[in-house]
Amino acid sequence: MPVNLSAPRSSDLHAVPGVRLGSTEAAIRKPGRKDLTVVLLDEGASVAGVFTQNRFCAAPVQVCREHLTTGGIRAMVINTGNANAGTGTEGLQRARSSCEAVAQRLGVSAQQVLPFSTGVIMEPLPVERIEAGLDAAIADARPDHWLRAAEAIMTTDTVAKAFSRKVTIDGATVTITGISKGAGMIRPNMATMLGFLACDAKVEPAVLQQLALELAEGSFNRVTVDGDTSTNDSFIVIATNKAAHAPITSLDSSAGRALKPALLEVARLLAQAIVRDGEGATKFITVRVEGGATSEECRQVAYAIAHSPLVKTAFFASDPNLGRILAAVGYAGISDLDQGAIELYLDDVHVATRGGRHPAYREEDGQRVMKQSEITVRVVLGRGAASDTVWTCDLSHQYVSINADYRS
Amino acid sequence: MPVNLSAPRSSDLHAVPGVRLGSTEAAIRKPGRKDLTVVLLDEGASVAGVFTQNRFCAAPVQVCREHLTTGGIRAMVINTGNANAGTGTEGLQRARSSCEAVAQRLGVSAQQVLPFSTGVIMEPLPVERIEAGLDAAIADARPDHWLRAAEAIMTTDTVAKAFSRKVTIDGATVTITGISKGAGMIRPNMATMLGFLACDAKVEPAVLQQLALELAEGSFNRVTVDGDTSTNDSFIVIATNKAAHAPITSLDSSAGRALKPALLEVARLLAQAIVRDGEGATKFITVRVEGGATSEECRQVAYAIAHSPLVKTAFFASDPNLGRILAAVGYAGISDLDQGAIELYLDDVHVATRGGRHPAYREEDGQRVMKQSEITVRVVLGRGAASDTVWTCDLSHQYVSINADYRS
Repeated sequence: MPVNLSAPRSSDLHAVPGVRLGSTEAAIRKPGRKDLTVVLLDEGASVAGVFTQNRFCAAPVQVCREHLTTGGIRAMVINTGNANAGTGTEGLQRARSSCEAVAQRLGVSAQQVLPFSTGVIMEPLPVERIEAGLDAAIADARPDHWLRAAEAIMTTDTVAKAFSRKVTIDGATVTITGISKGAGMIRPNMATMLGFLACDAKVEPAVLQQLALELAEGSFNRVTVDGDTSTNDSFIVIATNKAAHAPITSLDSSAGRALKPALLEVARLLAQAIVRDGEGATKFITVRVEGGATSEECRQVAYAIAHSPLVKTAFFASDPNLGRILAAVGYAGISDLDQGAIELYLDDVHVATRGGRHPAYREEDGQRVMKQSEITVRVVLGRGAASDTVWTCDLSHQYVSINADYRS
Repeated sequence: MPVNLSAPRSSDLHAVPGVRLGSTEAAIRKPGRKDLTVVLLDEGASVAGVFTQNRFCAAPVQVCREHLTTGGIRAMVINTGNANAGTGTEGLQRARSSCEAVAQRLGVSAQQVLPFSTGVIMEPLPVERIEAGLDAAIADARPDHWLRAAEAIMTTDTVAKAFSRKVTIDGATVTITGISKGAGMIRPNMATMLGFLACDAKVEPAVLQQLALELAEGSFNRVTVDGDTSTNDSFIVIATNKAAHAPITSLDSSAGRALKPALLEVARLLAQAIVRDGEGATKFITVRVEGGATSEECRQVAYAIAHSPLVKTAFFASDPNLGRILAAVGYAGISDLDQGAIELYLDDVHVATRGGRHPAYREEDGQRVMKQSEITVRVVLGRGAASDTVWTCDLSHQYVSINADYRS
């Protein structure tokens, strides 16, 4: 059961002028489920991407990076059931063939197609099944098929993830809609498993690339489920340039300052939705670290807490065994950390002061917060004014079950 | 159930001349179990220690570091049930009081006593219960009480961990016996949760300190259960200097070269025993990384694999979902890694070559190895001639249960 996250209603998801989405059942891994999706873009859209830093990046990630250098992207093809990672040069060829098959049907070049794959690693991509399904997926493409697409890109996700907003820029209405997938192998480094965020704003391509980086930093790069950085993380931002405002040439312009927070809100909801639906998650945990010398060290400490199996199992058990958080702070890698300066809060409860248990701390107060489904851990390092936040979930029996049984 | 590890028999553990051990029930956390141990050393022993690099190191670790600077150690006092970590200046005072209580009874100075605590973090050490139990523990001290001591320092351990060897140095017989404890919060950084290794060899104190570092590097610093570096890791090496050989003044001497491998063998058995008895462990996994530019990067890759929850749950399930290992190699932090050079073996099975599935690899061969209780993962990076090895266990439902219920 995801934590305070329900499936979106199709009627809440606004169509983005210039974007159509279609899905079909292509039996990539198993029959009987939507597993092939195309996203079709009108001519003139700007597209930017941010990808996994995993050195074992998947073949489609390598092809996306190449194709984005030339621009003019007109389509994306996304399959689940197979990650096309750990597949060597053969995998690269298969990713390229799937782009060619899409390009042929749309009358564009293969360079104008971006491929995405997610699923099991180190198995050959059944590119012939993708080709066989493409006509149906393309025929299915409609502007209001965001929910269908969000459903079709799910793997171990239990609910579809999609959010939508409207924002006014220079008097023109701009529509933003995004979808994401991912529940395990989640510790994005520059991007998430798969995230697609589209708007009809007019944004210069170079500005859009910078925007994609900043959005990833503020959303997908701040979540973790299990610390396993995926081979396939891809975050794509699309601006179809259809809206009736002057082109945005700088993020510091008034239009840029209006657009970015709206996009960031949707990106963050998509990223947090992945944690809320994290494999086996029963709690959504915000880890905020303050008082650091730099925001990097704050993030480092926050991730040490967010990745600790002991901290995560304590949250699962609603057990205020909070010394485990201090231990994680201690091994986070800050070599000159002064434990006597550390403060620890659980929501409003002051748990530890100057590195030891707070005299007024009562176990029942910790217990009360630990039982909640949404918890904020706040650590103050006492070294400076920087801060940072990451979002994570607990570690439950269900996580082990899901990952022990994933392929069977 | 520990993996291929059974409780030692007392008769297999050799007494080390100059060392006596005693234990008692002091009801530190709960009544009815041995939880207080003293190790008494004859005058003239050399003692060296290696401690956790966790910046939130426990009070007893801080006191040990101080007391080891002056030498002349005559006793150690070890309690379970409470880690005396995250306890601030009050915790330091309590650690010092327990040393004073021991010193008083033995007629030595508090500086000559080393304190060790293990158990729950961030709760006040019940030093009055330690004091109340000391007379009984000291009265219990005998040279052949190694097994009793190994049992008395257990927390979530399911079996006692103790090993013994004899080695001949310059014609003199030297006896080596060691004990360790630990099953969770295990990712030692310079030492393990608690490890004590004693011999009656004659070793100069400075040489012994160097030896302790090298032994820790080759044993406890190469194991992990859950990646959580403890606040209390302590590894103590004792040489009682009773054996009838000339003092060892250098590790490069023939006597030094005879002693070190024997000590390392016992240290490694003790460290591996912690993994074999890792919380919820059902498999013992050796991760060997070869072909690296440096042994540091090999160890970094080995730990990325050994810490990956996805890899660990796949081992639990005996599921050869081996792409997860490649993914962990990819995110291990080697920024110029060439995925096309990677080879992966599972025992004798060649799983992946040049970054992709080996053409001759058959799932049933991977399956066969995954079902074993002892598995070697071997990764070849293709970057150089360095190698390194770490030892770990799988991640099971039982790990979650143990850590969700630890305090209740």
